[in-house]
Amino acid sequence: MGQQPITFLRQVMALCTYPNLLDSPSFPEDAKKRARRILQACGGNSLGSYSASQGVNCIREDVAAYITRRDGGVPADPDNIYLTTGASDGISTILKILVSGGGKSRTGVMIPIPQYPLYSAVISELDAIQVNYYLDEDNCWALNVNELRRAVQQAKEHCNPKVLCIINPGNPTGQVQSRKCIEDVIHFAWEEKLFLLADEVYQDNVYSSDCKFHSFKKVLYEMGPEYSSNVELASFHSTSKGYMGECGYRGGYMEVINLHPEIKGQLVKLLSVRLCPPVSGQAAMDIVVNPPVPGEESFEQFSREKESVLGNLAKKAKLTEDMFNQVPGIHCNPLMGAMYAFPRIFIPAKAMEAAQAHKMAPDMFYCMKLLEETGICVVPGSGFGQREGTYHFRMTILPPVEKLKTVLQKVKDFHIKFLEEYA
Amino acid sequence: MGQQPITFLRQVMALCTYPNLLDSPSFPEDAKKRARRILQACGGNSLGSYSASQGVNCIREDVAAYITRRDGGVPADPDNIYLTTGASDGISTILKILVSGGGKSRTGVMIPIPQYPLYSAVISELDAIQVNYYLDEDNCWALNVNELRRAVQQAKEHCNPKVLCIINPGNPTGQVQSRKCIEDVIHFAWEEKLFLLADEVYQDNVYSSDCKFHSFKKVLYEMGPEYSSNVELASFHSTSKGYMGECGYRGGYMEVINLHPEIKGQLVKLLSVRLCPPVSGQAAMDIVVNPPVPGEESFEQFSREKESVLGNLAKKAKLTEDMFNQVPGIHCNPLMGAMYAFPRIFIPAKAMEAAQAHKMAPDMFYCMKLLEETGICVVPGSGFGQREGTYHFRMTILPPVEKLKTVLQKVKDFHIKFLEEYA
Repeated sequence: MGQQPITFLRQVMALCTYPNLLDSPSFPEDAKKRARRILQACGGNSLGSYSASQGVNCIREDVAAYITRRDGGVPADPDNIYLTTGASDGISTILKILVSGGGKSRTGVMIPIPQYPLYSAVISELDAIQVNYYLDEDNCWALNVNELRRAVQQAKEHCNPKVLCIINPGNPTGQVQSRKCIEDVIHFAWEEKLFLLADEVYQDNVYSSDCKFHSFKKVLYEMGPEYSSNVELASFHSTSKGYMGECGYRGGYMEVINLHPEIKGQLVKLLSVRLCPPVSGQAAMDIVVNPPVPGEESFEQFSREKESVLGNLAKKAKLTEDMFNQVPGIHCNPLMGAMYAFPRIFIPAKAMEAAQAHKMAPDMFYCMKLLEETGICVVPGSGFGQREGTYHFRMTILPPVEKLKTVLQKVKDFHIKFLEEYA
Repeated sequence: MGQQPITFLRQVMALCTYPNLLDSPSFPEDAKKRARRILQACGGNSLGSYSASQGVNCIREDVAAYITRRDGGVPADPDNIYLTTGASDGISTILKILVSGGGKSRTGVMIPIPQYPLYSAVISELDAIQVNYYLDEDNCWALNVNELRRAVQQAKEHCNPKVLCIINPGNPTGQVQSRKCIEDVIHFAWEEKLFLLADEVYQDNVYSSDCKFHSFKKVLYEMGPEYSSNVELASFHSTSKGYMGECGYRGGYMEVINLHPEIKGQLVKLLSVRLCPPVSGQAAMDIVVNPPVPGEESFEQFSREKESVLGNLAKKAKLTEDMFNQVPGIHCNPLMGAMYAFPRIFIPAKAMEAAQAHKMAPDMFYCMKLLEETGICVVPGSGFGQREGTYHFRMTILPPVEKLKTVLQKVKDFHIKFLEEYA
């Protein structure tokens, strides 16, 4: 999508990969300092060695320090940090360890609808029960605790709800949860003794000036010891999103708190079967949590590149929302965070019939038509889940501004033509 | 363990990581050529992009070309190649897709004893049935097909044996299977309709001059179409072993043949949940299967480094066998391949009693004593499985020759003292 890698990150990675470059004058000193720190913590000073299954020690320390800074001083313990193969690996590992039982005692896992399909896939892989709670589209996809209550009560009739998954900022829905809402969710989890799983991979991707990312960990601690020493929480981060977009390295971490020591032992054992997460991805994660600071040689360039990516994403989020809302039959909630628009589309009755004739879901039919006629590929809402009778698609806002404008214009033209064709 | 990375591999990786280096005169042209080829096949010419879930196309092509060369012209189809997060990931994914059923129809998975504990761990994770077949220690850990027959017949009484796992060269046992033995195993798998899982990650690690690595794929094809179009086979390779030892990058591939198209569809779907294997690991795998060739600038240095690692391992394999067999109460089979010695140790009755008093397996007690008294850490045979009443430990032969000599001498001294102490 044209987004360039952050120079500093790649410099440190190259230095770690081929340490001969540590003598090269063309690399800045602060990058060399980071590379030396990482290599010294690796077996044989090499990214090629296995690390501990939980991840390289000093990188887990850097992650803990990052979390503490991010959360205004709320302490983080490196022992609770697990480096992972992207966030997906962490999420499926935690779910694997939490799911158990058969019949009415089968584990229920609560997930938002719309959701990121990793959740439904892993739940199905593990033979757990997917418990849907619906985000409120009419209220900018907010999470409503009453809806959580409805969902958990209903679920208790046929399974044992044990886990509550939250995606904040939302994927595909782009909402950013308010502090109040997070408090309510934590209180609910405490009441219902649910394990909280906070997917916070878009924590750097917040665009609206009137909202802010609050980590579940921070809010949990601020709610006092009754909550902070009892509610079990795993939160996830990744190198794949934010301003860095380093998906291919499969870097990520999870912080797990209040896990029973015996379960923790089982978790480490489970992780050790796969030996360790990719050490290059661990190194990438380290640079994300330990970037250049004021006074360091690379600080200015790093900040410029970071701001440029995030500034552009904010611009594109606004542009996309505005453009979609100009189209009759499309409604798009504000893109407060993450990287996607998830507009609601009106599909005329005749188009529904045509879809049925093609044995396709109406939104799938719409997306296939869009692909055929414009070459633009978006994902039908049915892949993420949506309230019955509503239709959506997910589109990324990653393309460069000018390209995105063209894409949006083409979608608009297509949609108007589609409405006419099936009027 | 002091083994240095292969320069060419790290050069290509550094160039891929930080493509500015493609203009640097300090990198050889053949490394740049490899890096450009890999980058051109990556989204946005970057290791930071997600790849297809099955892996980068051109790397799968290079893997297929490598297999064809290795197997003297037996064709390999890139469409049957899946890049993985190390071999462990491939093995657990294939097992996941093969295991099903409950009660007497639960899937039985046949594994060698001694085995590499990944197998028992994944079988237990998947709630499948572990079906042991014993390697013949008195016959240099050879695989005997009669033992396979015994194991499968017995297993059929309580489960549905569907998978036969082979580790060749053996881990922890170091045997290299003869061509005849592989033929027998394939015939057995054909008769019993078993899915063959050939763990061939040590294919470059063969040391005895009187044995040779034969891939299951090659032998299968040479046995004719009745076998080559019917027997389902998955074989695994990795960047972690051989002469490269790049464990941290988590690179690997599997070649899967004769898989039913519908199952193949399910396999790709399953892989796509985790998005893709680390692209840096995929790049490392590419260099392993596409090394410098005669006439290229890096060929000489590459060959020198490769031969040095493999030559040293061969020397150390012989040294270890010889040293162990000089010790009364230790018997060590020839280390024909892989990277470990798995000597049998005699444990006196009094030591067995002491172990029992400590609630430890006798070989665990032995290994803990060794660790406490010498600082040398080896793995008790009970972690790999062994015939009842026999005791072993696994020791790597990776340390540099001089260090290895010291280690072996210390183990020898310890063992003699141990025998005296518990005489």
